[in-house]
Amino acid sequence: MSNARRRIAFQGEPGAFSQDAIRQLLGPSARIEPCARFDQVFATLESGGAEAAVIPIENTLHGSVHENYDHLLHYDFPILGETNVRIVHNLIAAEGISFRQVRKVYSHPVALNQCLDFFARNPQVERVPFYDTAGSVKMIMQERPDGAAAIASSLAAETYGARVLRRGIEDDRHNYTRFFLLARPGSKLRPKNAGREWKTSLVFTTRNIPGALFRALSAIALRDLNLTKIESRPLRGKPWEYLFYVDLIGRVEDERVQNALGHLRELADLLRVLGSYPCAA
Amino acid sequence: MSNARRRIAFQGEPGAFSQDAIRQLLGPSARIEPCARFDQVFATLESGGAEAAVIPIENTLHGSVHENYDHLLHYDFPILGETNVRIVHNLIAAEGISFRQVRKVYSHPVALNQCLDFFARNPQVERVPFYDTAGSVKMIMQERPDGAAAIASSLAAETYGARVLRRGIEDDRHNYTRFFLLARPGSKLRPKNAGREWKTSLVFTTRNIPGALFRALSAIALRDLNLTKIESRPLRGKPWEYLFYVDLIGRVEDERVQNALGHLRELADLLRVLGSYPCAA
Repeated sequence: MSNARRRIAFQGEPGAFSQDAIRQLLGPSARIEPCARFDQVFATLESGGAEAAVIPIENTLHGSVHENYDHLLHYDFPILGETNVRIVHNLIAAEGISFRQVRKVYSHPVALNQCLDFFARNPQVERVPFYDTAGSVKMIMQERPDGAAAIASSLAAETYGARVLRRGIEDDRHNYTRFFLLARPGSKLRPKNAGREWKTSLVFTTRNIPGALFRALSAIALRDLNLTKIESRPLRGKPWEYLFYVDLIGRVEDERVQNALGHLRELADLLRVLGSYPCAA
Repeated sequence: MSNARRRIAFQGEPGAFSQDAIRQLLGPSARIEPCARFDQVFATLESGGAEAAVIPIENTLHGSVHENYDHLLHYDFPILGETNVRIVHNLIAAEGISFRQVRKVYSHPVALNQCLDFFARNPQVERVPFYDTAGSVKMIMQERPDGAAAIASSLAAETYGARVLRRGIEDDRHNYTRFFLLARPGSKLRPKNAGREWKTSLVFTTRNIPGALFRALSAIALRDLNLTKIESRPLRGKPWEYLFYVDLIGRVEDERVQNALGHLRELADLLRVLGSYPCAA
């Protein structure tokens, strides 16, 4: 197997939170393939430039990443696993810079805005927007601006040989991102964080008639299958028609799940199983 | 009525897309009260510093703004209207700067990342991350950096006396944000963009038993009421328990809606009507 086929594609710089997800799913030795954009992650997987990919799919504060659902539907790579990463923001600087010397803090504006209590307590430091969290650590280590620090994951500090000055400076400790592990068909990769239960992720559309969703859900509820996610999304250019994202507890091979999917196929215009995978332990 | 009570609070700088939403909802003469954070928008409304507020609730690319659903539940201000704003990004510069002179383009990284085709076609311009879109126009007009432009709404160009050099440079024309108009209880404000149909927005939680959501939806489906949104959200610290956001077509005073709500109250642990308001025309 070539090196390329064992690499794991993700969006962002080395040290991004997606790389934390890769470690949880595949361990610390997984080789990474950073991409600038989500569509490039999928294109890299399709071209064989990576064997697998790890993508964020939803966040507890910011909702679902619809762009990645669109790519999942377009490309049809199976989901092999899931994991949840708590978004912990750390103040990071080069060796030799003390907290008292910090005057500028670089990071992505979303991360800066998730640490407002820290900035209120430390009015001497200026916030400077940057492209991304891990990239801001890379930049301060390469360019060494005076009195500079960055906000990013501890993995970013480790990646670029920087030091964590303050741990966990985020305002909200309940900020989690859920990631999917995808792979090329036939991949033998298995997630290391597999729990005992399994989950199956579906996308379906229903006809534009009252009660259509209720009827579609009957296919699942009448088999006593538990839902862990449901979300509607309007279909572009088709008023009153919707895609539904559904996650249920159960393995696609289970008889009850098979029966539910068979029934749902009768009721839905389109039905796609995005994957069936072990729940994060 | 004091001036303060006629002001409309929103998050962002003057010229933000939220101000486009305010214009669609209340016309161009509405007086604005910009706030730095969403929690400050709600606090301003509560303290009487504004009569109403306009907040983003979901985006076609980035999903629901859970933070604002949390504030809606916490503060209990009724939703009076809704509107959809297409996110059009424009290249904006000071009078006298031609497109050929532009070397640096300032904006929020999310906006910069939504114009990647433009940057690919124009490799001579450098992208510079900034706090927000309208704020980047304000900055280039005040500080006049050499060869500087910004990416923001045309309202931001108008607000700061800048010029639009290129219109609609966003990659995806299907990028819409949905906004809610909220007001203090007793407000006489009415949205100017009212369509004929009405919508009612609910939040409910269900007991942790299989089929609980299905049973809850029966209260709506058995009255032939159409859903336009459903979304689950895990409850913090309560595995297997969920909040559901539901929008349905109908006015809260309608008999069918009243019957559905009465039935839903029997089935749900918590039920809150966030508002009943005219659909955007």
